[in-house]
Amino acid sequence: MLDLRCGSVSTPCFVPLATKGAVKGLEPRDVEALGYEMVLANTFHLFLAPGAELVEGFGGIGPFMRWGQPVISDSGGFQIFSMGHGTVADEIKGRRGQGGRAGAILEIAEDGVRFRSYLDGRERFLGPETSMEVQAALYADIALVLDECTPFHVSREYTARSTERTHRWLTRCLQWHEDHGPLDQAVYGIVQGGVYEDLRRESAATVAGSACDGIAIGGSLGQDKAQMYDVVAWTTGELERGAPGRPRHLLGIGDVDDLIAGVELGIDTFDCAIPTRLGRHGVALISAPERRWRLDLVKAPSRRDPRPIQEGCPCPACAAGFSRAYLHHLLRAGELTALRLVTLHNLSYISRLMSELRSAVHQGTLERTATALRAGTPPRWLGPPTSCTGGSGSPGP
Amino acid sequence: MLDLRCGSVSTPCFVPLATKGAVKGLEPRDVEALGYEMVLANTFHLFLAPGAELVEGFGGIGPFMRWGQPVISDSGGFQIFSMGHGTVADEIKGRRGQGGRAGAILEIAEDGVRFRSYLDGRERFLGPETSMEVQAALYADIALVLDECTPFHVSREYTARSTERTHRWLTRCLQWHEDHGPLDQAVYGIVQGGVYEDLRRESAATVAGSACDGIAIGGSLGQDKAQMYDVVAWTTGELERGAPGRPRHLLGIGDVDDLIAGVELGIDTFDCAIPTRLGRHGVALISAPERRWRLDLVKAPSRRDPRPIQEGCPCPACAAGFSRAYLHHLLRAGELTALRLVTLHNLSYISRLMSELRSAVHQGTLERTATALRAGTPPRWLGPPTSCTGGSGSPGP
Repeated sequence: MLDLRCGSVSTPCFVPLATKGAVKGLEPRDVEALGYEMVLANTFHLFLAPGAELVEGFGGIGPFMRWGQPVISDSGGFQIFSMGHGTVADEIKGRRGQGGRAGAILEIAEDGVRFRSYLDGRERFLGPETSMEVQAALYADIALVLDECTPFHVSREYTARSTERTHRWLTRCLQWHEDHGPLDQAVYGIVQGGVYEDLRRESAATVAGSACDGIAIGGSLGQDKAQMYDVVAWTTGELERGAPGRPRHLLGIGDVDDLIAGVELGIDTFDCAIPTRLGRHGVALISAPERRWRLDLVKAPSRRDPRPIQEGCPCPACAAGFSRAYLHHLLRAGELTALRLVTLHNLSYISRLMSELRSAVHQGTLERTATALRAGTPPRWLGPPTSCTGGSGSPGP
Repeated sequence: MLDLRCGSVSTPCFVPLATKGAVKGLEPRDVEALGYEMVLANTFHLFLAPGAELVEGFGGIGPFMRWGQPVISDSGGFQIFSMGHGTVADEIKGRRGQGGRAGAILEIAEDGVRFRSYLDGRERFLGPETSMEVQAALYADIALVLDECTPFHVSREYTARSTERTHRWLTRCLQWHEDHGPLDQAVYGIVQGGVYEDLRRESAATVAGSACDGIAIGGSLGQDKAQMYDVVAWTTGELERGAPGRPRHLLGIGDVDDLIAGVELGIDTFDCAIPTRLGRHGVALISAPERRWRLDLVKAPSRRDPRPIQEGCPCPACAAGFSRAYLHHLLRAGELTALRLVTLHNLSYISRLMSELRSAVHQGTLERTATALRAGTPPRWLGPPTSCTGGSGSPGP
């Protein structure tokens, strides 16, 4: 449980992205109804538009977006360095170009990063102090310090130097926050160190040794899941020693198996684009580990399928009886309603998954629950299958 | 009040478009919560995808889209002839090319129209019997006969010949329906005749003389609002004599002042893309006749505006306290949530407008109400203004 300025948050939990101030396609009441208690807004994007000063005039990002519960603000480090290093997607897909959609980096220096805005081409600057200042204006419950997010393909040498700069930025961020930041805003440090055990342990010890309120794990977590779990385990192991009581956030991770593993490794909160982004691409999350928990509704097998996304699922899409065939049709036709419905399903799936994991943690049955969930055993939140062929067509609740 | 297969519908009312089987961006529960009792699905689009046979397997368009209340299906005439004549938008904007986004017309003959599908380039055919067959499969509560929808720029001679064919198609549609159509499906004839009083009156008399259950008014209604109201008045005048008890639908009309005028002229139901399409373009409907009832939230004046779209409006967007500034930001950022919120506001506005007009009709105060609404007097459904600056940011209901 996290006690934050705007309320408490049950942990472990997933934090949906409200990158530009909205969970894509949903309203705050939708996100709340799915059981979420916190969202993550992005400093980089909100800094560029509509600007920190405008949001501050509304009392912060919460009041601006009409979300009455806690908010985390990302520091913007990931987005800035994605411009220089290429995005994680570029990395996965083997593209190595400079820049891209997010704009162009002009200079990385000790004081921060100069870059060109992807909106208007103007030169902008974000450094540790600027990031904290923007996050103070956004008045998020949790601010993250600015870090350099190193990708997988850079050298050990680069990672070591970059991690040292991240540590210096941590000190500067905490100093700025102590001098100017809101007293009731928590600040999380960020552990870097790439895939190198000594660098990760050193970084975890450094962050644990700082006065931050919580600790986020960032950067490249490796080239496969086994390596990712190693990296997280080294880090949480170190944090267990150096910062035993402080909450831990795993940045940008949200695959079903990774959430399960993360909870086992002692992570409290997670954020990730996966559930919402997959939803907008018509890919639904289901209890099918053999298919990476994914059902691609755009593909041909759904064309005539009268079943809901998942039998017995209580989400707004399944409970109302929308068939895979209907969603397939809407997705092929580019209808916004489908993007919303699959997003609702996916966020409902993740919310209930985390709720199941929370119960297991509290009941001391995590190992058994994790094993069952990993094996694709239908989770307890799925009720008995509903009939969904023909019928009166009466809409859902 | 219309008594239809899937329920009754209070009139006069507006019918939102669910062209491809979804009101764009909304779920059926949203549309129902806004007070709507009927939606309009499109035969042309559903014929091409997912196909009538697939929808029939689900028990019709209502069960397929999980809408438990009545549905009208458009005949497809407007869409087919838009390919040949150019769309209404083309007409307004002075473009006169053949075809366009909707595909390409190959041949218009007495039996129907051959055209190329915009989806896969396949040659398809839609004639009066095919249209009724598709609509029987969609199992809409109200089917419309196939008509040739003549645009404004064609000659009187063309309009006269085309209107005669529409009348022959009316006979064929009614015949097919009598022989093969569902007994509990109502069929509306369509009045054409362009902007020519004698042709319109003749067409109205012909349709009134047929065995159709209701009458729709289609085709070009003129080059300005004055001419449109004339065309509608000639038609309803004629229908008053020839078909006094039968319900009247005005096709494709939905501007606020046109809805008011239409009710005064005795129209029962209206459908139109305007409220939903404007919503997706960030244009909200407000009580400002001097601005054509429109507020363009994308434009600069909304950038810092803390007010909701309309003070006192009970729609999900205004009641939750979303500011114009927030919507402006989301619209500029291309966020789906904003398209949804403005669509909800617009459909709420139109639903309440029609409810106000219904009350006035029943209380015999239509003239006074129409005058007040036309003058932009804040309608009765707007409560006292709400405060919307700062605040706790607690989300709406």
